[in-house]
Amino acid sequence: MEEINLVKDIFFSPSKAVSKKDKKIEEAKKGWDKSGEDTRKRMVDAKSFRKAGTKVVDASDCVALLEAVLRPGDRVYIEGDNQKQADFLAACLTKLDKTKVNNLHMLQSALALSDHLKVFEKGIATKVDFCYSGPVASELATMVMEGKINIGAIHTYVELLCRMYLDLIPKVSLVAANAADKNGNLYTGFNTEETPAVVEASKFRNGIVIAQVNEVVDKVPRVDIPAEWVDFVIATDEPYYIEPLFTRDPGLITESQIFIAMLSLVGIYDKYKIKTLNHGIGFNTAAVELLLPTFGEEMGMKGNICSHWALNPHPTMIPAIETGWVKTMMPFGSEVGMENYLMTKPDIFPVGPDGTMRSNRVMAQLAGHYAIDAFFGSTLQIDQYGNSAAATAGRIPGFGGAPNMACNAPGRRHPSPGWLQASKEDGMRKDLIGPIDRGRKLVVQMVETFGEGMSPVFVEKLDAFELQKQAKFAIPPVMIYADNLTHIVTEEGIAYLHKCKTLKERMDAICAIAGYTPLGMKAEESKTKKLRKDGIVSLPEDLNLSFNDAKRSKLAAKSMADLVRWSDGLYEAPTRFRNW
Amino acid sequence: MEEINLVKDIFFSPSKAVSKKDKKIEEAKKGWDKSGEDTRKRMVDAKSFRKAGTKVVDASDCVALLEAVLRPGDRVYIEGDNQKQADFLAACLTKLDKTKVNNLHMLQSALALSDHLKVFEKGIATKVDFCYSGPVASELATMVMEGKINIGAIHTYVELLCRMYLDLIPKVSLVAANAADKNGNLYTGFNTEETPAVVEASKFRNGIVIAQVNEVVDKVPRVDIPAEWVDFVIATDEPYYIEPLFTRDPGLITESQIFIAMLSLVGIYDKYKIKTLNHGIGFNTAAVELLLPTFGEEMGMKGNICSHWALNPHPTMIPAIETGWVKTMMPFGSEVGMENYLMTKPDIFPVGPDGTMRSNRVMAQLAGHYAIDAFFGSTLQIDQYGNSAAATAGRIPGFGGAPNMACNAPGRRHPSPGWLQASKEDGMRKDLIGPIDRGRKLVVQMVETFGEGMSPVFVEKLDAFELQKQAKFAIPPVMIYADNLTHIVTEEGIAYLHKCKTLKERMDAICAIAGYTPLGMKAEESKTKKLRKDGIVSLPEDLNLSFNDAKRSKLAAKSMADLVRWSDGLYEAPTRFRNW
Repeated sequence: MEEINLVKDIFFSPSKAVSKKDKKIEEAKKGWDKSGEDTRKRMVDAKSFRKAGTKVVDASDCVALLEAVLRPGDRVYIEGDNQKQADFLAACLTKLDKTKVNNLHMLQSALALSDHLKVFEKGIATKVDFCYSGPVASELATMVMEGKINIGAIHTYVELLCRMYLDLIPKVSLVAANAADKNGNLYTGFNTEETPAVVEASKFRNGIVIAQVNEVVDKVPRVDIPAEWVDFVIATDEPYYIEPLFTRDPGLITESQIFIAMLSLVGIYDKYKIKTLNHGIGFNTAAVELLLPTFGEEMGMKGNICSHWALNPHPTMIPAIETGWVKTMMPFGSEVGMENYLMTKPDIFPVGPDGTMRSNRVMAQLAGHYAIDAFFGSTLQIDQYGNSAAATAGRIPGFGGAPNMACNAPGRRHPSPGWLQASKEDGMRKDLIGPIDRGRKLVVQMVETFGEGMSPVFVEKLDAFELQKQAKFAIPPVMIYADNLTHIVTEEGIAYLHKCKTLKERMDAICAIAGYTPLGMKAEESKTKKLRKDGIVSLPEDLNLSFNDAKRSKLAAKSMADLVRWSDGLYEAPTRFRNW
Repeated sequence: MEEINLVKDIFFSPSKAVSKKDKKIEEAKKGWDKSGEDTRKRMVDAKSFRKAGTKVVDASDCVALLEAVLRPGDRVYIEGDNQKQADFLAACLTKLDKTKVNNLHMLQSALALSDHLKVFEKGIATKVDFCYSGPVASELATMVMEGKINIGAIHTYVELLCRMYLDLIPKVSLVAANAADKNGNLYTGFNTEETPAVVEASKFRNGIVIAQVNEVVDKVPRVDIPAEWVDFVIATDEPYYIEPLFTRDPGLITESQIFIAMLSLVGIYDKYKIKTLNHGIGFNTAAVELLLPTFGEEMGMKGNICSHWALNPHPTMIPAIETGWVKTMMPFGSEVGMENYLMTKPDIFPVGPDGTMRSNRVMAQLAGHYAIDAFFGSTLQIDQYGNSAAATAGRIPGFGGAPNMACNAPGRRHPSPGWLQASKEDGMRKDLIGPIDRGRKLVVQMVETFGEGMSPVFVEKLDAFELQKQAKFAIPPVMIYADNLTHIVTEEGIAYLHKCKTLKERMDAICAIAGYTPLGMKAEESKTKKLRKDGIVSLPEDLNLSFNDAKRSKLAAKSMADLVRWSDGLYEAPTRFRNW
């Protein structure tokens, strides 16, 4: 038996470990470090690509490096992130010799680039676990049906990330950063996103980490990922690709969307005193953001709502920030063109000692799950029970972050007024848990009754069922389940679904605000009257609002140029959004 | 208007930022960097305590340093973690001059040390947001009722951590690490826990970070937290305090607990093919851990269950690990005495390139929420509806990690057999969301019908209501709500509560397995017969198990010494658990 003080030694100062014990540990490790033995073998060849005394590898050696570190059947993460893309590494993957490297199991938050699919077309990879695939949703569906891609599962972001620590550990991780020094310290800039979480998942399981960087520098502005966690860095000719995913042009916001935003502000944001929140992507929520300094101010809502945000730095938030609505914002990633502006707002955004922002997808998603009172978003389809989905036949867009944020957080315990009120009003609570007070997150869908191409948003049955059959999924890909949804807002009014005592009553409430869609045509005036009386449905007149008031003149910014002006020229809109 | 290529400059290489733009940014920052201005003022005095050219401060200067950086009303995090404690810093806090520093708002995962309470007794702090307070539950309740402590809220761990990024940002963070170098790079050893997450929350919001370390070294074994994120390091005479919270002596496991474990293994673990899981702390789950290599093996369960664990390294897991049951384990923290053993198992635990483990509370809790199929735990009280709580009148123990892991994860989307089956069996699903298949986590309470001091576990109304009144909480402190609980296992049998179609049926099922408690006495034989027929209740005979088979001889280890033997002497049991 070892001496007890050895425990203290190893625990408190491993650098002082006693050699006799070291030997015993090395001996005992045998047979329990197969992943390490395997990695060390791969590294023998791979290390030869490093420039002497550094972790730097020439971009021209990248394909050969990948062939040295990869083995058939490996689980490989590629960043494939929500916004930034390790696009150079993705391109290199497509160039691998399929006879050497094949059957890879890819892990990636986003399938976004054509190279992501090409890896499968070429047979280099066969299986994927992912979260979001909006940009290639149709192509992905086709390849799944042709048997070219085997989907492990579709996840919400943090779900996939935490599985990388448990049952989907990546052997090799291919990531992107802004800069590295020659030792491998990484600087991720504003788009830190999920890179540190993934690098840790790999490196502390004997994995191999390869980073493409925009430049190798003598000293990184700050260390986002320590050198020992990174094996290879490759400076690329072109900076990594990044998508301005959260930018919406105020010029495209319609009066119908403004009206829905006004209804929501009066009937939900203000009614429940929502201070902590997340917005999905879309014009409905962009309208809310641009109404705060105008309509919100007139209605006396300032100070009572919308002070703390789990949100990427939406350019449409600039007027609300400038007029003092926002206390803090916690971003998942950054947004192209917002960098200079963010540097000037350390009281609101997480700006580091180096002066640039550090985002954090894991902590922002956690805040989006646990710390916020309400999620406001939009969707393509809502069924008669209140389930919603963005998947349609022939398209697999994935889930992204919505399932995590647009659900109740049953583990939450800290109270706030809106959270308590929503549960107090909950018509089914007593049937579920008896006469006990608790809280509940608000999950709100803001939709026009007819969506793009005049297809009805309200449907009897989701297209997700059809897709389930096509792609042979175990269950249909539902984005938000009916029992997590609390409110639907359309141009017809608001349904306070969580107040309903039965599924039948909820179905009636949905019909009441579903307009001229087939579901809406089922609404009965007498039922709607009773639902209004019971406070389950509010029509615009019940909120003292009229469509005539929904004018574009109410928007704090009416164009991209307006947003740039609000920022005093600090927001630099991406080219595609500039018409001046 | 700036040139568009400036965006690229700042984004891709901030180190090359143009000075004209720098000036513009500095100008625009005014009025939006109040937190930074405040911090820089505090740092002027505080920096004088640093030894020249380092971030090292003498332990004897710590009180003065704290008085220099703290201001009345500050929000202050102290580590106050689940296991490791920044105990030196906690002691220093109690020594502050109350006329200079008072009214602090403390954030801490755990209230565990008497010094944590002393800070309030002395009036230096007045408010606390926390998660767990088991060791001081009675004292805390008394102080709350005497008005000496104002509780902001009680949280589950990740809930508090993510609020530190949104609406509870700490101005000053007081943390503990194993070692630091003179620049401030921190090595956290096996007990990394939540330290990196908290340091980031502070430092990227203009906060101040002070770390107590067991030693200052020339070079840390690995960088867990980069130097720029840390302002001061203080080497202490004594290593930080750490609690072996998850160690259970096999010698204390009773036959009743073994029987409950056997019922659970046959009726739940194996039936739902639970591969990914978490265990709470307690003898019931310790019994399961020690039955895997014996009873589990005999029953042919190996390979089908219990392969991937979100779990601290419980010593009672050693026999299952040694016999090849465990593929991976993701720990929240470490466990005292397990360090050498963990170093020998890199295939199972997250061991870094330096050879020591790195735990991660955030990612392990996320895995416990999203990646696992089942939670198995225990509780003090379960009410007639199935709600459970560990809070009783006069004691405020907090929640810890249970609410996060012992709840369904409504945002989860990846399927597994057990998760699909639990939802398929769900008797209320159709009434909640219509005829749509989904999944559901298993949340299992394993309890003897009578707990410590022969007090009944099954009660009509939770004591939590009494505590709510005493402490003036907005809602009673419930640990697991009835609609998240799927199974209860007692020595009487198993109730498959999620199968029930109504609250009434669930209440009957609970009575059926509640033994001779007042609730159990309400059970009616005819109802129980029907519940058995419907598969909602299984008695031991339904599972072909008899109490006579529940022998201590079935445990793979019967004592602490056995565990040490299983580990070949690598597990070094803490003194209090050693009787040899």
